Amino acid sequence: MTNFPIVNLLSKPEHTLKTIYVACRTCYSALYPIKIWEDSCDEGKMLNLVKKVLSSGHHSTVEHCQFVFAISGVSRACTHQLVRHRHMSFSQKSQRYVTEKGNFEYITPPKIENSNLNEEYKELMEKISNFYEKMITAGIPAEDARAILPNATTSSLVVSLNLRELMHLAQLRLCTNAQLEIRTLVKKMCDLVIAEEPWLKEYLVPKCEIKGYCDEIRGCGRKPQKA
Amino acid sequence: MTNFPIVNLLSKPEHTLKTIYVACRTCYSALYPIKIWEDSCDEGKMLNLVKKVLSSGHHSTVEHCQFVFAISGVSRACTHQLVRHRHMSFSQKSQRYVTEKGNFEYITPPKIENSNLNEEYKELMEKISNFYEKMITAGIPAEDARAILPNATTSSLVVSLNLRELMHLAQLRLCTNAQLEIRTLVKKMCDLVIAEEPWLKEYLVPKCEIKGYCDEIRGCGRKPQKA
Amino acid sequence: MTNFPIVNLLSKPEHTLKTIYVACRTCYSALYPIKIWEDSCDEGKMLNLVKKVLSSGHHSTVEHCQFVFAISGVSRACTHQLVRHRHMSFSQKSQRYVTEKGNFEYITPPKIENSNLNEEYKELMEKISNFYEKMITAGIPAEDARAILPNATTSSLVVSLNLRELMHLAQLRLCTNAQLEIRTLVKKMCDLVIAEEPWLKEYLVPKCEIKGYCDEIRGCGRKPQKA
Amino acid sequence: MTNFPIVNLLSKPEHTLKTIYVACRTCYSALYPIKIWEDSCDEGKMLNLVKKVLSSGHHSTVEHCQFVFAISGVSRACTHQLVRHRHMSFSQKSQRYVTEKGNFEYITPPKIENSNLNEEYKELMEKISNFYEKMITAGIPAEDARAILPNATTSSLVVSLNLRELMHLAQLRLCTNAQLEIRTLVKKMCDLVIAEEPWLKEYLVPKCEIKGYCDEIRGCGRKPQKA
Repeated sequence: MTNFPIVNLLSKPEHTLKTIYVACRTCYSALYPIKIWEDSCDEGKMLNLVKKVLSSGHHSTVEHCQFVFAISGVSRACTHQLVRHRHMSFSQKSQRYVTEKGNFEYITPPKIENSNLNEEYKELMEKISNFYEKMITAGIPAEDARAILPNATTSSLVVSLNLRELMHLAQLRLCTNAQLEIRTLVKKMCDLVIAEEPWLKEYLVPKCEIKGYCDEIRGCGRKPQKA
Repeated sequence: MTNFPIVNLLSKPEHTLKTIYVACRTCYSALYPIKIWEDSCDEGKMLNLVKKVLSSGHHSTVEHCQFVFAISGVSRACTHQLVRHRHMSFSQKSQRYVTEKGNFEYITPPKIENSNLNEEYKELMEKISNFYEKMITAGIPAEDARAILPNATTSSLVVSLNLRELMHLAQLRLCTNAQLEIRTLVKKMCDLVIAEEPWLKEYLVPKCEIKGYCDEIRGCGRKPQKA
Repeated sequence: MTNFPIVNLLSKPEHTLKTIYVACRTCYSALYPIKIWEDSCDEGKMLNLVKKVLSSGHHSTVEHCQFVFAISGVSRACTHQLVRHRHMSFSQKSQRYVTEKGNFEYITPPKIENSNLNEEYKELMEKISNFYEKMITAGIPAEDARAILPNATTSSLVVSLNLRELMHLAQLRLCTNAQLEIRTLVKKMCDLVIAEEPWLKEYLVPKCEIKGYCDEIRGCGRKPQKA
Repeated sequence: MTNFPIVNLLSKPEHTLKTIYVACRTCYSALYPIKIWEDSCDEGKMLNLVKKVLSSGHHSTVEHCQFVFAISGVSRACTHQLVRHRHMSFSQKSQRYVTEKGNFEYITPPKIENSNLNEEYKELMEKISNFYEKMITAGIPAEDARAILPNATTSSLVVSLNLRELMHLAQLRLCTNAQLEIRTLVKKMCDLVIAEEPWLKEYLVPKCEIKGYCDEIRGCGRKPQKA
């Protein structure tokens, strides 16, 4: 369970940098975008323009690149946070239509796992699982029986988002003040994208790296507090 | 607890019908919208135009009216569904920053309440509550201790949405196939709006009433299945 | 100019149907989505599930597929309509930063081209072009000189949207009541997608084909008016 | 024409500060939001909390306040920019359904008005207007005849947006690099809101005031360039 959450990159643009480059140039050029697309162009030149455009805050140009992830082993506490991002698309395992009977799975926060309360935590989870199965067997519908399922219960999702939203997600959820589980999840998502597109590394960072300061009420010290 | 969820309308437009009327006329008139706004106009005439525009599917005109609700006594299972509506705005009670210690509150689905499992349900809730308090007392942060809190745990939110999204919400969540709790919640939201604007009654209905047929895989019989 | 607008498909998902299938199954299955993805599955079975899910109105599952287009030779009248679609992403040629000097291009609506006013139309366009160049030469910035440029002036864009929005776009803009130019543009976009994914043909249609009736105030007779 | 664009505030929340305050407190309190709403609270205390929450970047709390504007005397060049803001709602005068015959109105950019090209500009506008009327009289539909109408042609809209989007709009469009007309328009929108809610003055400012630096490629000197 220590490799939770499980994150895989299902889909990515065939030409990430080139797509963004063509979008950027289309704004400032008399050329047809298909001509810009077809003309050969070396990567260094493309990267140069894209970085310049991004540093001036013109971020709509990276919306043209979408990434699709398969996510599992993530708690419902975490998915309740994740689905608050309204520019993302989600297809999530339903607790109404999929019974947890026989396959109840849950996460254990490290601070509980490493405490002397871990055994009691596991016992409670088993108690919950048993009563859930009892209710299902007694004919209570899954959508009602799930009332007792804890936040720790895992879920699965297919998630997609464009690069602009991924950059935004990173800024908020890689912050030390974000909860550990979603921080880990978003870190894995970013790492998978960076493995494909190493030049994105400097853009998939917590917000303090972009702003140059921390605007949280209590900072972690990575950057100075906002004056 | 039988009056759960608790729903109050905090804010509504001062002139709902007039606002929509002016938006509709602006599209089809050479007059300045401020002139249309200032000219007196009887309600019947306004209603007539608005109904005609709405029946032709031109729904962006009702986005100019926003409603704000205070919601409490609603389960986290239900709020996880609610926040999937990406055109709404939410400010929700945090389980990270607000401890449930001393004020753990939960819903009981009627099918459990009316079964012979209700006592066992209540005992489990008490067990969960006790272990939660034990963890908090032992120094486990609320954001980790909440891992054991059940879907039944209640939450509070301030929610706002425009009339177009309220119509969409009604269409999806007043459907018999929606879960009872969110159906009850959305019914209360709609009833509060209809109490202020009775002419909206015909628009705050399940999707089958708008389409004339049911497109669900299993219908409830209210309308015939899609051919 | 008769082949205006010029539309090219720059990017599409590597596995459109499979991505949607995995999204659909994730909602109703205890399996991890990566397992569903990796398991081989024949196309017929995938298509079967996806069609069933789509016919029940569960359209969020097709948001995971994004298409990117390069568009040129489209009038600013048309792009003003196009950018009203708020779920799409746009990178459009700027009339502030790109001068039309020496490359002014415009569309001619067929009803003008085929009338005896066509010559006068062309003369006016030339007059406009000449005065535009005169202003630029006199030092008027392009962002001000463009005040005289007509709606007929062409523009270029990189546009991206997901399949759900493409279906929505088709429903509204393939309707006979949509203006000819945007209808032609959207038809070309849909045809390019259908060439790649022929099974989408039945979903990229005007709204009357989906609803079974016409809800426009004045219909074209393709489907009966709404009762 | 010097008072163009014409902007009026049609609708605003009855209790802007209180609504935001209740939204903020709901996140961090065990109290029901309706209780927070009903409890009296002095304005100073409310303002204090709201400012603290806003300065930490938690901006979703101001989405609960919507403002509705009537706008006229604004060029189609400007409205093409305005409708690119995808979190706003628009009802705009249609050039397809409303003929400009007899009421063609246009803006003149100050740099043209104050140049020796102003007379030629006015003559061209008259020529365009005359040919437009000739086409309409000859039976060319308005949707086609408008092909010759210039960017300078004025339009009218009803526009609504929430406070979060108004803050975002101000940050982008009050920047010296935004075009004069949209800068003037957005300034008028902000001033109308500030007249009602003076405490918002510090939030309705160009982005450099929020960031503390300028991230544009060419800055105006108001703030130092980003390092």
